[in-house]
Amino acid sequence: MRWLTEVRAGVDERLERYFEAKRDAARGLAPESVELVDAIAALTMRGGKRLRPALMHAAFCAVAPDRDPAVLLDTGAALELLQTYLLVHDDWMDHDEERRGGPSVHAALREAHGGDAHLGASLAILAGNLASACAWELITRGEHPRAIEREVTRAFLRMHQEVVYGQQLDLLATSDVSLMQQLKTGSYTVRGPLMLGAAFGEASDAQREALLRYGRPLGEAFQMRDDLLGTFGDSGATGKAVSSDLREGKRTALVLAAERRADAAARADLTRALGDRGASDEAIEAAREVLVRVGAKAEVEERLEALLDDARRALEDDSLRELGRERLRALADQLGRRDR
Amino acid sequence: MRWLTEVRAGVDERLERYFEAKRDAARGLAPESVELVDAIAALTMRGGKRLRPALMHAAFCAVAPDRDPAVLLDTGAALELLQTYLLVHDDWMDHDEERRGGPSVHAALREAHGGDAHLGASLAILAGNLASACAWELITRGEHPRAIEREVTRAFLRMHQEVVYGQQLDLLATSDVSLMQQLKTGSYTVRGPLMLGAAFGEASDAQREALLRYGRPLGEAFQMRDDLLGTFGDSGATGKAVSSDLREGKRTALVLAAERRADAAARADLTRALGDRGASDEAIEAAREVLVRVGAKAEVEERLEALLDDARRALEDDSLRELGRERLRALADQLGRRDR
Repeated sequence: MRWLTEVRAGVDERLERYFEAKRDAARGLAPESVELVDAIAALTMRGGKRLRPALMHAAFCAVAPDRDPAVLLDTGAALELLQTYLLVHDDWMDHDEERRGGPSVHAALREAHGGDAHLGASLAILAGNLASACAWELITRGEHPRAIEREVTRAFLRMHQEVVYGQQLDLLATSDVSLMQQLKTGSYTVRGPLMLGAAFGEASDAQREALLRYGRPLGEAFQMRDDLLGTFGDSGATGKAVSSDLREGKRTALVLAAERRADAAARADLTRALGDRGASDEAIEAAREVLVRVGAKAEVEERLEALLDDARRALEDDSLRELGRERLRALADQLGRRDR
Repeated sequence: MRWLTEVRAGVDERLERYFEAKRDAARGLAPESVELVDAIAALTMRGGKRLRPALMHAAFCAVAPDRDPAVLLDTGAALELLQTYLLVHDDWMDHDEERRGGPSVHAALREAHGGDAHLGASLAILAGNLASACAWELITRGEHPRAIEREVTRAFLRMHQEVVYGQQLDLLATSDVSLMQQLKTGSYTVRGPLMLGAAFGEASDAQREALLRYGRPLGEAFQMRDDLLGTFGDSGATGKAVSSDLREGKRTALVLAAERRADAAARADLTRALGDRGASDEAIEAAREVLVRVGAKAEVEERLEALLDDARRALEDDSLRELGRERLRALADQLGRRDR
């Protein structure tokens, strides 16, 4: 898909230029300051699928296919910086030592400062805060019509606040897993980018509603794919430790399905590994086998496919323009297949 | 000073109403979510001198004394929320357990969650992030002329980024203490609020320069007062543990002056307490006596007075209007006397 390659290249190039300017500015303050820019630049540029800018772009094409998508570039870069901010903070909260095939930011900064865990964590929190401020800079520096600017700012604020509550509910292991996921991931991964594309394209109400009907099941499917990868994924592809979700005791769709389906013996095997950060590889493998044996993995895979079908069906809405429908469909297909 | 009481009351009332709306919104998400709003509301409303909104107000009066200062209210509330965000994160980084006469946010959330230090810290980081997002909401939701909005956003962004670098340099115990303080405290405490008042009042270049000539020594004086209070202050008035600066090993103006002035024996007394979190009250008292005996305390007090004189002199600039000059002078006088 050439358009997707172009969207990615455009965002990457904008980010590179932005980080270069930030590095220069930091160097002008104090030699030490560059370390924080380097930390967020390294994570941001190391992989990343640029899914959020791609969704914004496709939504824009679904409402304003004749306009120049270059207006989206700063906001696309801002979405990636928002994600960097969230990943940096969450990885520390969740004790994740790896991200995108390298050390997470708090782990890297801890090693750079003599193994001092509190200093590494503190600097990582600051690096995340810097990424957040940078995202706001990219969101507010544009020269767009005022009505668009207001809507873009509002959409960005909403994402920014919802992810905080989502991560809070995750830390507290809330029983309402679906709400938690909707706030923690769905808002800034799918709904937010779609609404940003709609804002820049000055979408009609009917178009916004159609995009939301597409986004709701897509967001849920995205989360299920994440759950599958976090438990069964190949760490070489995901760039994270294998089965970190099980060791962290996350209430994933897989675990919830298994608890419904498993008998007492199978539950015991699952419980042994779940939430035990020091669980042996054998215990993890046994828990994974339970998830397969009781049919939890197959159930989640089926539900994921059904959700993607719902998303594709929502695109049959006449209010959306063909160019964008095609691209949104392609993104749903790709999400169905993604392995990282 | 009736104007100052009115500025404080106006900001407090705006903050109360804002938190009430945020509580309602959080309650609509999940019952747990209110805890984060309560955490930042408790810290924000528990004292706080509203110095930053007052400086913004006085600067506004120095350039546009005939305009209605009600346009400043949301931004005044945003400055307080920016401070809340920074205090919450910094208190965790600096191991400060008390703030404004109550528990710091990570300490309160740790106790609310069974003494789990990592969970308390994680929730505190989220509470700080929420305060940051709320500050942005208040900054961007106004209906001001576009040129003013752009300048306000730029000033806010600058503060937001400079404090990150300032705190980083503080954590790394940089040798350039003056730069660190300028970035960490001066930017969002004095310079930023003055430039926000200038932006809302559409100040001339000459007026901006005069305000900056006032702000530079005032910011330095503010930091010195902070150093004096953090070492010699009465914890009942400051709301922080006594001499936490010494136990944290901060490179305050007092310590720097003492190192220049002290002989080997006095240095040894100072070094014994400095940076030792478990230092006995006797060791702290001995270190304080060194600071007095070698003249470091007197030196810093004298420099503080000289800086305040510089600030007052900068107000003799004809480009500034009398109402604002009076109020800026009053704030400098007050800062010279503050005990918390």
